Amino acid sequence: MESNETSNSILNFENSKANFIEGYSSMLTFQPVVPIQKHSISTTSTVPLYEKLKNWNIQGIEHQNLRTEIFKVLGNKQLFYSDLDASKEQQRLNTLKQLQSLLSEIFGKDLIHISDIKDDPSKILALIDCLSQFDDSSLLTKLVVNNYLFGAAVYNLGTERHHKLLPEIECGKLLGCFAMTELGHGSNVRSLETTATYDPKTDEFIMNTPVRTATKWWIGNAAHAVVASVFARLILDGKDHEVHCFLVPLRKRNGIDLLPGVKIGDVGPKFGLNGVDNGWIQFDQVRIPSSSLLDKFGSVTNGVYSSPISNPSRRFANILAQMITGRISISFGTIRSFKTALVIATRYALKRLQFGPSTNGPEIPIMEYPTHQLEIMPMIATTYAYDAIKLYLARRFMERQDENEIHVLASGLKAVLSHYITVSILELRRMCGGHGYSSNSKLHRLLSSVDVGRTFEGDNTLLLQQVAKDLLTQFKKEYTSNKFTGTLKYLSKNTSLLLSGLNPYTTNRRDESHLLSFQFLLDSMEFRSSKLLIQSAQLVSKNYNKTKNSFIAWNQSLETLLHLARAHTETMIISRFIESINNEKDAETKKILTKLCQLYGLYRIRMDFEFYRNSNYLKKGKARAIIKLIQELCADLAQNAALLVKGFGNEESLIDSPLGLEDGDLYDNICKRVGLFSDKNYPEPILKSKL
Amino acid sequence: MESNETSNSILNFENSKANFIEGYSSMLTFQPVVPIQKHSISTTSTVPLYEKLKNWNIQGIEHQNLRTEIFKVLGNKQLFYSDLDASKEQQRLNTLKQLQSLLSEIFGKDLIHISDIKDDPSKILALIDCLSQFDDSSLLTKLVVNNYLFGAAVYNLGTERHHKLLPEIECGKLLGCFAMTELGHGSNVRSLETTATYDPKTDEFIMNTPVRTATKWWIGNAAHAVVASVFARLILDGKDHEVHCFLVPLRKRNGIDLLPGVKIGDVGPKFGLNGVDNGWIQFDQVRIPSSSLLDKFGSVTNGVYSSPISNPSRRFANILAQMITGRISISFGTIRSFKTALVIATRYALKRLQFGPSTNGPEIPIMEYPTHQLEIMPMIATTYAYDAIKLYLARRFMERQDENEIHVLASGLKAVLSHYITVSILELRRMCGGHGYSSNSKLHRLLSSVDVGRTFEGDNTLLLQQVAKDLLTQFKKEYTSNKFTGTLKYLSKNTSLLLSGLNPYTTNRRDESHLLSFQFLLDSMEFRSSKLLIQSAQLVSKNYNKTKNSFIAWNQSLETLLHLARAHTETMIISRFIESINNEKDAETKKILTKLCQLYGLYRIRMDFEFYRNSNYLKKGKARAIIKLIQELCADLAQNAALLVKGFGNEESLIDSPLGLEDGDLYDNICKRVGLFSDKNYPEPILKSKL
Ligand SMILES: Cc1cc2nc3c(=O)[nH]c(=O)nc-3n(C[C@H](O)[C@H](O)[C@H](O)COP(=O)(O)OP(=O)(O)OC[C@H]3O[C@@H](n4cnc5c(N)ncnc54)[C@H](O)[C@@H]3O)c2cc1C
Ligand SMILES: Cc1cc2nc3c(=O)[nH]c(=O)nc-3n(C[C@H](O)[C@H](O)[C@H](O)COP(=O)(O)OP(=O)(O)OC[C@H]3O[C@@H](n4cnc5c(N)ncnc54)[C@H](O)[C@@H]3O)c2cc1C
Repeated sequence: MESNETSNSILNFENSKANFIEGYSSMLTFQPVVPIQKHSISTTSTVPLYEKLKNWNIQGIEHQNLRTEIFKVLGNKQLFYSDLDASKEQQRLNTLKQLQSLLSEIFGKDLIHISDIKDDPSKILALIDCLSQFDDSSLLTKLVVNNYLFGAAVYNLGTERHHKLLPEIECGKLLGCFAMTELGHGSNVRSLETTATYDPKTDEFIMNTPVRTATKWWIGNAAHAVVASVFARLILDGKDHEVHCFLVPLRKRNGIDLLPGVKIGDVGPKFGLNGVDNGWIQFDQVRIPSSSLLDKFGSVTNGVYSSPISNPSRRFANILAQMITGRISISFGTIRSFKTALVIATRYALKRLQFGPSTNGPEIPIMEYPTHQLEIMPMIATTYAYDAIKLYLARRFMERQDENEIHVLASGLKAVLSHYITVSILELRRMCGGHGYSSNSKLHRLLSSVDVGRTFEGDNTLLLQQVAKDLLTQFKKEYTSNKFTGTLKYLSKNTSLLLSGLNPYTTNRRDESHLLSFQFLLDSMEFRSSKLLIQSAQLVSKNYNKTKNSFIAWNQSLETLLHLARAHTETMIISRFIESINNEKDAETKKILTKLCQLYGLYRIRMDFEFYRNSNYLKKGKARAIIKLIQELCADLAQNAALLVKGFGNEESLIDSPLGLEDGDLYDNICKRVGLFSDKNYPEPILKSKL
Repeated sequence: MESNETSNSILNFENSKANFIEGYSSMLTFQPVVPIQKHSISTTSTVPLYEKLKNWNIQGIEHQNLRTEIFKVLGNKQLFYSDLDASKEQQRLNTLKQLQSLLSEIFGKDLIHISDIKDDPSKILALIDCLSQFDDSSLLTKLVVNNYLFGAAVYNLGTERHHKLLPEIECGKLLGCFAMTELGHGSNVRSLETTATYDPKTDEFIMNTPVRTATKWWIGNAAHAVVASVFARLILDGKDHEVHCFLVPLRKRNGIDLLPGVKIGDVGPKFGLNGVDNGWIQFDQVRIPSSSLLDKFGSVTNGVYSSPISNPSRRFANILAQMITGRISISFGTIRSFKTALVIATRYALKRLQFGPSTNGPEIPIMEYPTHQLEIMPMIATTYAYDAIKLYLARRFMERQDENEIHVLASGLKAVLSHYITVSILELRRMCGGHGYSSNSKLHRLLSSVDVGRTFEGDNTLLLQQVAKDLLTQFKKEYTSNKFTGTLKYLSKNTSLLLSGLNPYTTNRRDESHLLSFQFLLDSMEFRSSKLLIQSAQLVSKNYNKTKNSFIAWNQSLETLLHLARAHTETMIISRFIESINNEKDAETKKILTKLCQLYGLYRIRMDFEFYRNSNYLKKGKARAIIKLIQELCADLAQNAALLVKGFGNEESLIDSPLGLEDGDLYDNICKRVGLFSDKNYPEPILKSKL
């Protein structure tokens, strides 16, 4: 792992005087966006349906070669295994080794680069999709921290002079961390307290932790990182230019010895992701060269500060917006974790028998109980809906035509997905009974890794507020022209409905052809978003008029604003799901996706009957008919449960749960896992530990 | 820990020929039920309100002396501490030592006995209430397994000859386990496969694991138990007399060496409760004396089987019903875990500042955000509601007048509480942001220990079905007489309403005096239970007429049946909460409890708007008024959040979370916990572990 090529920079580095100005700019050459790969499945009936579904759910992010190589690396069972009994320290060591191996085998071999953030984001999404299948996502998280937070900061916030570091970063030779959060500030990063004070005498910044709450906290990779991208207030001539990002060397290149003035410690064990070393970092007047400022959005030349964006709020928003790859990774990884959990719970439910028509006669699979179907089938349907929007997001991300749309969608999706998936996996645990409570089931490991997705890369409550704020801004802008475009197009359709009132015939209509039509599903969602958008605008302005304080007025409206953000995101999901089904050429695929979409749509409507009933959009008979249809769709789709989860396309060798293996007898698999065949008894230490 | 007094029985024991017939029956002397201790708080205003609330929420289960002694034992920090970095083996060893100490100090000193199951159950409830405050409830669980599953089996299912073991069991000299669940059967215990075949030649039973799925699974204490209460099919003369419970010695009295024919192993690490050793057990033709049969509900004398209950279904139901103490313990322990989580999240929310009216000005506590209040305040209100029903259950449990009522209530409560509490703690984790994700917060440890409460001691879905079944049976019985008594009293009130239809004036009424009245809250709940009960009866019979198969008919009705069971349980909760507030003498206490009850009631109604709106019980204006009142009540009660959680009466020294300490600076407490003051850096092994 030792490299000679970099010895030059090491030297500079350890003097804390690294000069980032020289470097090659080749990484920055923008390549044309790779055109979306078209759905490649054949429509002949010889391809099994699950294969078609597999292809459907990765269309545009296939990159088969990359996937194959990644799975090859993960196939090295000497290195890539999950040790449920390992100590936190051992887990971290394992993850570190796994990361090094993966980076050198995949990034080091030119299969993908950090610059694919712009060149070909679909590769990153394929990478995430594969890695999130391994173990509890500790490895994925550590990789995201290194390449898509730290590396992305260098790439997106830095300029050419910094980009020369990318090759070393991406192949694991230069491990880094992303030091934004502080003990006192997580969501409100604009109020971070770490300072980087410019010293004109030496043309350096002095990085400092002036108060304890400024201690960097939660920093992933802090135990191993050689360098950090540190967010700190840029102070120049006594003026606070607000938060910017700086590269700060932490350790000598051996990755062990801390540099002077740097203190690092562990924040301790966590609910999950214990393979990731999250630490705290303090700086005591650490000097770094002025070139360490990642200066795309603000620079200091000859002691003078300048920025292409003069408004500090907008500037900071821009800096944060660059970190979107991390957020999108969470959504993609979380969806895959959900798929894994669903594969496990579904296969278990098909193999586990409990109770039967007669006391001592044969028993039935628990999947046959309607309670089970009513819980699990909407989850499966939702996963397909998420795949549709995921692929749309991937496409828009690649096209980069409307940064704002991507931002709103990525934020809303991350919040909506991570929440639903977290609470759902908790239920899947319960639905697998005691066997689900065993760590061997993998379920709680999936739970704990998706749960944190509600907090990091933007706390969900805050992300939803950003979505709402953006919608309101857009609304205000387009309101005067009375022409709603882009994401708000649906408003035009609904204004007359909102003004003239609902049609009593429609609010009562309960025939299947109506309720199961995509039109009804889409109309319902769009109506809700429209109504909530107008309500939100009215509410915020009413509250503002009352309080004359926009902070208070906003907060007083929070419940409605969050509702709006969720509703809008769900509207985006269903409209993309419908669009993608309409575009589907294969009849068999189209048929099953249609049912999944119907179930997803009706289920979402049911989950918000409060809104739909109180806004008179649905009369009670119609609401009841929806409930009945949901029951029927669940029972119907449950017949295909095995196929539907196979259609997720999980790599079978990574399922790693005796409950979720496709092959073999359920109890054989469980017994093997606990070592019941090996005649292994309680290990000696326990037996001997009797008082 | 070695005891000489028992050497005699040890000998018999290890020969697997223990004679349980001799013994002292003194433990069986039923003492009169201890009268309920009256609410003892003074009503002078010098007692702070939180003190009054503390007293309120343990009225009837005070046992101050017992509590003091337990906290004294738990105060031994050498033994009673939580080591978050300990390996599974170390955790188990710690818990074992803690158990031994607790049993000998509390049970060994005559402060409480297993026989209090009948003599004074309120003592057990006080014990649970204290123990559930320590660490992650591993100790509590191990104690419940030993004393209230294994011990209770001996006490409730055995007869005098078995009771002589109780003194040794309860003080930890004879550790036992409760071996009911098998690899293949958890909920459907009537189909267990372990066999106990009577051998008339030797007057013994032969305990055997005939197939792999008959392996006992999940057995708590399996690593340390000397004896097990094993559920197995009693086979006599080739006839299967169904499942009975037997005492089977597993190990020599040293607690280490397994007896011949017994195999025991570990089922592995779990989501939580890793201080509890859950194992699997197999029997290979193990011979035990016929006296090992716990023979209260079925015995073999001179090779002939007899039972006081001839119907095998009823007999088995009776056997299972004896295990109710365990189920009630779960509810009590879970409520206390919820309180701990709420103390932590509330205090954190009051101390954590994030964002403020101006970008760089002072920030506000996150508790001030309505989103926070709308989530946390209904949880706090619910806890008080749970306390009310908990105390009622305790009283009824002590009075033992209506076993059926207790059974229905205990089952419904366990299912309703454990579910709500589990999903709520997951949200509290999120609401504490990153700091909530740290193991130090204690939140995920609480989550994992309450989560399993949804599975063990009766899977929730099955418990709710039992409640529904019982309600339907009662309904059928009382329907003909048209006189509904007991728990179904509410039906009489509602029959006319259900027949004649709802009053449009009432369904529209939205004035506060109406919506906040206990009458409205109670009426709404009772109406729902009544309507669902009648619907369920109709649905089951309709489905039966269609299918002529009661298993299928029942299953087809499951969604409604579960809804009924939950609704009934919630009706019981609110009616006891109201009753207890009406009986409250202290004006200040009464005032705040009233608000909590209003919030609880309206919140529950809102959570089931689907029912209330679709049954026309609430018109939309009324539904909206309820939402507004909930917002107002949350904002109002949030002013008293600190007081309300202090009123839970948690032992401060056991909170064990830097987020939830009453005293000290939040960040001081967090830093102390991660050792930031101690200049401790990443431990050497990690640093040195660089590749
Ligand atoms: C496992 C893990 C790894 C991490 N890795 C890194 C890393 O590598 N680098 C890094 O820089 N950071 C990292 N973080 C930190 C993470 O980014 C923060 O936890 C996250 O930004 C949330 O901030 P917070 O935890 O301070 O929550 P807070 O901002 O304190 O929020 C706490 C609660 O208050 C609520 N709240 C706050 N403000 C408002 C408001 N205005 N309106 C309504 N509600 C509000 C939130 O919704 C939340 O429920 C990590 C965190 C974890 C848990
Ligand atoms: C930590 C832990 C400790 C334990 N300790 C002990 C112990 O000491 N001794 C002991 O004997 N046991 C113990 N158990 C076992 C526990 O009692 C069982 O897990 C429990 O009874 C549930 O059974 P099961 O896990 O087999 O679930 P199953 O019965 O297999 O249920 C699985 C799923 O199917 C559903 N289902 C099953 N039947 C139906 C139906 N008719 N209708 C609708 N849905 C249905 C359930 O709701 C559940 O979601 C322990 C379990 C755990 C997790």
